[in-house]
Amino acid sequence: MGHYRRVFFFGIVRAITCLLVWNVTVVAAQAAAPEPVDWIVTGKFVVTMDASHRVIPHGSVAIRQDRIVGIGPAEEINARFQAAHTLKREQDLIAPGLIDTHTHAAMSLFRAFADDQRLQDWLTKFIFPAEAKNVDREFVRWGTELACLEMALAGITTYTDMYYFEDEVAETTKRAGLRGVLGSSVIGFPAPDYKSWQEAIRGAARYLDTYAHDPLIVPAVAPHAIYTTPDEALRAAHDLAVKMNAPLLIHVAETQKERDDAIAKRGMTPVETLEKLGVLDGRVVAAHCIWVNDDDLEILKRKGTGVAHCPSSNMKLASGIAPVTKMLKLGINVGIGTDGFAGSNDSADLILEMNLAAKLQKVATMDPHSLPAEQVLEMATLGGARVLGLDREIGSLETGKRADLITISLAHPNAVPLYNLYSQIAYAAKASDVDDVFVNGSQVVSGRKMLTLDAEEIYRRAEAYHLRVINSLR
Amino acid sequence: MGHYRRVFFFGIVRAITCLLVWNVTVVAAQAAAPEPVDWIVTGKFVVTMDASHRVIPHGSVAIRQDRIVGIGPAEEINARFQAAHTLKREQDLIAPGLIDTHTHAAMSLFRAFADDQRLQDWLTKFIFPAEAKNVDREFVRWGTELACLEMALAGITTYTDMYYFEDEVAETTKRAGLRGVLGSSVIGFPAPDYKSWQEAIRGAARYLDTYAHDPLIVPAVAPHAIYTTPDEALRAAHDLAVKMNAPLLIHVAETQKERDDAIAKRGMTPVETLEKLGVLDGRVVAAHCIWVNDDDLEILKRKGTGVAHCPSSNMKLASGIAPVTKMLKLGINVGIGTDGFAGSNDSADLILEMNLAAKLQKVATMDPHSLPAEQVLEMATLGGARVLGLDREIGSLETGKRADLITISLAHPNAVPLYNLYSQIAYAAKASDVDDVFVNGSQVVSGRKMLTLDAEEIYRRAEAYHLRVINSLR
Repeated sequence: MGHYRRVFFFGIVRAITCLLVWNVTVVAAQAAAPEPVDWIVTGKFVVTMDASHRVIPHGSVAIRQDRIVGIGPAEEINARFQAAHTLKREQDLIAPGLIDTHTHAAMSLFRAFADDQRLQDWLTKFIFPAEAKNVDREFVRWGTELACLEMALAGITTYTDMYYFEDEVAETTKRAGLRGVLGSSVIGFPAPDYKSWQEAIRGAARYLDTYAHDPLIVPAVAPHAIYTTPDEALRAAHDLAVKMNAPLLIHVAETQKERDDAIAKRGMTPVETLEKLGVLDGRVVAAHCIWVNDDDLEILKRKGTGVAHCPSSNMKLASGIAPVTKMLKLGINVGIGTDGFAGSNDSADLILEMNLAAKLQKVATMDPHSLPAEQVLEMATLGGARVLGLDREIGSLETGKRADLITISLAHPNAVPLYNLYSQIAYAAKASDVDDVFVNGSQVVSGRKMLTLDAEEIYRRAEAYHLRVINSLR
Repeated sequence: MGHYRRVFFFGIVRAITCLLVWNVTVVAAQAAAPEPVDWIVTGKFVVTMDASHRVIPHGSVAIRQDRIVGIGPAEEINARFQAAHTLKREQDLIAPGLIDTHTHAAMSLFRAFADDQRLQDWLTKFIFPAEAKNVDREFVRWGTELACLEMALAGITTYTDMYYFEDEVAETTKRAGLRGVLGSSVIGFPAPDYKSWQEAIRGAARYLDTYAHDPLIVPAVAPHAIYTTPDEALRAAHDLAVKMNAPLLIHVAETQKERDDAIAKRGMTPVETLEKLGVLDGRVVAAHCIWVNDDDLEILKRKGTGVAHCPSSNMKLASGIAPVTKMLKLGINVGIGTDGFAGSNDSADLILEMNLAAKLQKVATMDPHSLPAEQVLEMATLGGARVLGLDREIGSLETGKRADLITISLAHPNAVPLYNLYSQIAYAAKASDVDDVFVNGSQVVSGRKMLTLDAEEIYRRAEAYHLRVINSLR
């Protein structure tokens, strides 16, 4: 038998075998008892945000352990799977959990503490002094609990943090049952957790090691910004991130002053500075990126750097308007961030941020077609996952992905009638419409109640910190 | 006795008499039984928005019939008054009811129906055709019920409407128990209610007469805009408004096109056009006022014309950014409007609009001090009342004013801790935090439940209209 004949023969045999095996599998599956799963969650619609943006009317999601194992019409899923627990929300839509790409969770204890200020004043006159006097491990624990409570109730399943005592943030986030990309801060002056950037780098190394294989926590390193963190520290942070294969979180080109100072001192924009330092790559999550020119955008695109757009913060601190429409057209990955709670924003509400992000781009470009509802929902889900390098695991509802999902009630006057699901989510839904939240296959919110944290205890602690903060500044 | 001695003598007598009368009154008040009132509402704070912006910790509001008869510390009010009904919300703040200065309520049935469009396209390609095919008296009734349900649950106690079949809007609003400044539309083409503007003027005259002395309804006339309504109709509408002492509601300088067309056709801006037509005065509520120059602002100020600023709508339709900061500095009265539900906004949420208005001005002026929280709350309450000419009756919590008030829960993670009440309301509160709503002394919302309307029936009707609208456009 010549080579080609042999190939042909074995090809035929293989094809027949495949067909037989497939048939047997199908028949067996049909005859066999339904596969056991942990959860079947059913809703009026499933908004998958998968590659084809499939929407499934009266759809279900089957969950086994931490993964989605089936998704489709309710009848099909219920025939295929036998669930230990079922959640039927006939008046809700099911969507991927929302992904917050930039915040400082523990700052919730400073909520609305220094409002209506410019970023530089806000940082140097209010926040840094208040942090120096108040932030310790215990503060971070309760501030993070409060933030997790608020975020979970608002449908945020993954959040991205830059703060101090980040191992405490990680432990609290695990206790809350949320997913976190949690960055240990590196900054050029004594911080509440580490007295120097060298100490901060050593601390970050230990922290990255501890949480390297956590199912919920993606540990990251978070040098604050080029104007607060020495170049050497930025490089050291990046070296560590590369060595540990971790994300690097940083504020970039947030204010005109940051951009102007960089040009005056270095002859380079903040983005060029980071590129020159060798810090910019696909593992970087660059928060804000407002004062970026076309060359900067080209660099971000080329380096695969993701952007965390924070509309509330950028508007409220009068930092400016990020060219998000342009970024998206260039194919830069852009997610949405709520930013901190203390003046830059006063709540963690990604549904509100979607609303703002879309409206802000429309008026900034004077084009109502800019950033339509469907695209802004993508930014808050799969787009955010891409920014964090987690898009193979989260961001859409697909078989094989982690089961991070939320249900959003449609039984509210603001959801009636329903002409367009994406518009409904981006422009009309409220954080309070979120009924249930699952993260990594576990339910953390049920019927608007947090299952994993004690809200009353958190409120008591927050009130005590409130008094302490006020007294500390007298 | 000389003249001066006589004056002195009678002065002394009068002073002694006054002192005696005062003493007797005080003693009698102390000894007498407390005065009977219908309601005492008690909260953790009362945010009055009175002239001194007084905030009363642990405060109460006493209501008799439709008026506030007492306001102060809870102990004092409880000692002075005996209430038939009490509402104790120890975890809530009490605030004036929110005032929406511009919307089209019945358009709720078109919610999110034509999103991400430019105003002219949106009107001519989507809204006007859909209205022509669907809007009748019954549509207006159910659309208004749906809107009233949503507005009341979001803490809006007074709203300003421009639509068709306005007597139906009035009846529905009365049934809902809300306060409405409700404008009967006048437009230069056949509308769902009247086939010509002359008919519309005659209809408006009858409508203004019918509701002239209603406790809840302030009937108004609402010529649509200079680009849709003939000059003759604008003048006739104004004459009618003057004759009946009614507000006149109109869209002004909403888009660049409206401004440019006016200048091209008339050699005047839209504001100048209205002034020239003799239409502009203190009874006019001018919605939007985005494309206004300094001369226009001077005219608005001089004429005492109030402005309804609609941030969501202006951003979403990419109409532009109104110079609100400048208007307020000039002393122009500016309120906030949610605008319609069908593309220009998709929900009626004045708390969200406050949030947007403040943030939009900060970024537009690149000054974070622009439109601080306290000022934006004033816009949504007393400022709105001034725009509507109702500031002697509503807009703040003061003895003698109508009892229009809301309670906002502080027992939410987004309200903890509480450093600043105004920031809390403007930047962190959610519509869903509104627990109770009183309008004209009657409770219409209790613990987030609407008392006056049947939500389930409204949803059923809205769903039927949804199908009808979709089919009508096939």
